[in-house]
Amino acid sequence: MPEPVPMIEVTRGDLVESAHSGHAVICDASGEIVDAWGDPDAVIYPRSSCKMMQALPMVEAGLDLPPERLALACASHQGAPMHVERVASWLSDLGLSDGDLLCGTEVSRDKETREAMIRAGEPPCQVHNNCSGKHAGFLTFAKHLGAGPDYVELDHPVQRAVRASFDEVTGMTSPTYGIDGCSAPNFATSVHGLARAMAAFAAAREGAGARQDAMARLVSAMRAHPDLVAGEGRACTGLMRAMEGRVAIKTGAEAVFVAILPEQKLGVALKISDGATRASEAAIAALLVRLGVLDPAHPETLARLDAKIRNRAGLEVGRIRKAEGFA
Amino acid sequence: MPEPVPMIEVTRGDLVESAHSGHAVICDASGEIVDAWGDPDAVIYPRSSCKMMQALPMVEAGLDLPPERLALACASHQGAPMHVERVASWLSDLGLSDGDLLCGTEVSRDKETREAMIRAGEPPCQVHNNCSGKHAGFLTFAKHLGAGPDYVELDHPVQRAVRASFDEVTGMTSPTYGIDGCSAPNFATSVHGLARAMAAFAAAREGAGARQDAMARLVSAMRAHPDLVAGEGRACTGLMRAMEGRVAIKTGAEAVFVAILPEQKLGVALKISDGATRASEAAIAALLVRLGVLDPAHPETLARLDAKIRNRAGLEVGRIRKAEGFA
Repeated sequence: MPEPVPMIEVTRGDLVESAHSGHAVICDASGEIVDAWGDPDAVIYPRSSCKMMQALPMVEAGLDLPPERLALACASHQGAPMHVERVASWLSDLGLSDGDLLCGTEVSRDKETREAMIRAGEPPCQVHNNCSGKHAGFLTFAKHLGAGPDYVELDHPVQRAVRASFDEVTGMTSPTYGIDGCSAPNFATSVHGLARAMAAFAAAREGAGARQDAMARLVSAMRAHPDLVAGEGRACTGLMRAMEGRVAIKTGAEAVFVAILPEQKLGVALKISDGATRASEAAIAALLVRLGVLDPAHPETLARLDAKIRNRAGLEVGRIRKAEGFA
Repeated sequence: MPEPVPMIEVTRGDLVESAHSGHAVICDASGEIVDAWGDPDAVIYPRSSCKMMQALPMVEAGLDLPPERLALACASHQGAPMHVERVASWLSDLGLSDGDLLCGTEVSRDKETREAMIRAGEPPCQVHNNCSGKHAGFLTFAKHLGAGPDYVELDHPVQRAVRASFDEVTGMTSPTYGIDGCSAPNFATSVHGLARAMAAFAAAREGAGARQDAMARLVSAMRAHPDLVAGEGRACTGLMRAMEGRVAIKTGAEAVFVAILPEQKLGVALKISDGATRASEAAIAALLVRLGVLDPAHPETLARLDAKIRNRAGLEVGRIRKAEGFA
């Protein structure tokens, strides 16, 4: 079994202080590997990187949601007002409320919102959870199916549908699942499987059947709303903006990152073995630069791929950079 | 060059989701390796794990500081009132104030303090920086030497003294240095060098000359004040309490951990290559259990070495555990 390969280094002074290895696959629309580092068959949890796959059966079923809600269904959002208010109004349109979510509460990742809530003595709600848009999507689909409120159970019709389309799109049977931070099942796949799924999203065309239509709508929603998919200061938002809507990308916990390149009909998936987000962000930037869709000199690129590490006094003390031989 | 070896695994469901490798050395008082994993000669920045070495020349110079201040000089504290107030009063005794520190400001890591400051609209001070006790020590030593205020400069008498004793205690010439988060130089050494230094601290006896006396006093201060060395909820404090003062331990940024075992006259140093603190905490716990000084069933041990990972709804979704073949 191929080992993970060095991808990202963190320097301080003239030493590499810490280093990150991982697996990455670039895949074409036929499912073939175009390029790979490490072990394409490494089995991983995609975590939040597969939210567009978790939204897929809902859209494929014909539910006509506006692009903003589709983007939120695919989001690991920041819990800023623009996210929270939209999810709350979505729930309200369903005749539901915060208490119907099963994702658990999370302190808003938006500094202003977080501090305002601390000042007001307001505890975080479930709607602040970065996954609340995905869960609003699950609730929407559950309602459409006439299914019960326990929509994160493995045998709930929503999750059964997610699993079925997940297996189809990854081109393999998911060997197992874990419970995600938001209590939904997260189906395992290989890095290749995840990249194959992203390539399928990249190649999907509107008007080519319900599945491709749904895929194309989800990708288009992500590309149109990079701010809803994550938030200010976040890698997904910043890098998607830097690519001016040409590419959809999505992070997942424990250092997963995916990219969907419709123009090239390519899909990318990577996993940093140790789970470090600073490395998965740098690694996806490196692959996007390599693929010619991200400007290596763009400030959003430099903030991840050649990031200056500043200390508490603001001095530059080190760098995050690509390891030799990667990308 | 030996590669880092697998040390810690993070599971979710029935998969290992992320994995951490590193280097570790257990060293005796003669400087010989008793046990090692990975590459003992791997060059690392000890970061905050070497604070007792940075305080050493000050104590060796005969400055008679109370144990609480010695513990704070060795601390990466939480910025809780018990830390901040003591450092502030130390500075005041020197005729100095927050503005004389060069560590930079840091938001308090103590939740209550942090939220109270947000509610009051108070910005963090330098005294809240986890390194403020170390810097108060530097200022104390600079004053004693009659040296200038730029005590973090490489050629300042304080840092020249730190480097000289650092090289002596590690038993090797530091090959380079980096600038730490708090702007002080951080001298590189090998994992073996760091473990050798910790063994020297472990074997030091009061009354056996200025150096050993200083070392013994620093170790004794750390053992007596685990709450000052870190704070509530932190690994250093919790594990030192669990060992009932028998052992001094200290974390460093980017996943370094050291232990000083006076009863066995052993020193321990480890570095997780990817810089993940969750792994360095688990790894030091594993080594302390192996050395017979930490109860594997103690709640503080279980919180690091066999930690249940709970999601936002409180469900147990995974574990942090020792990799096969380590410790």
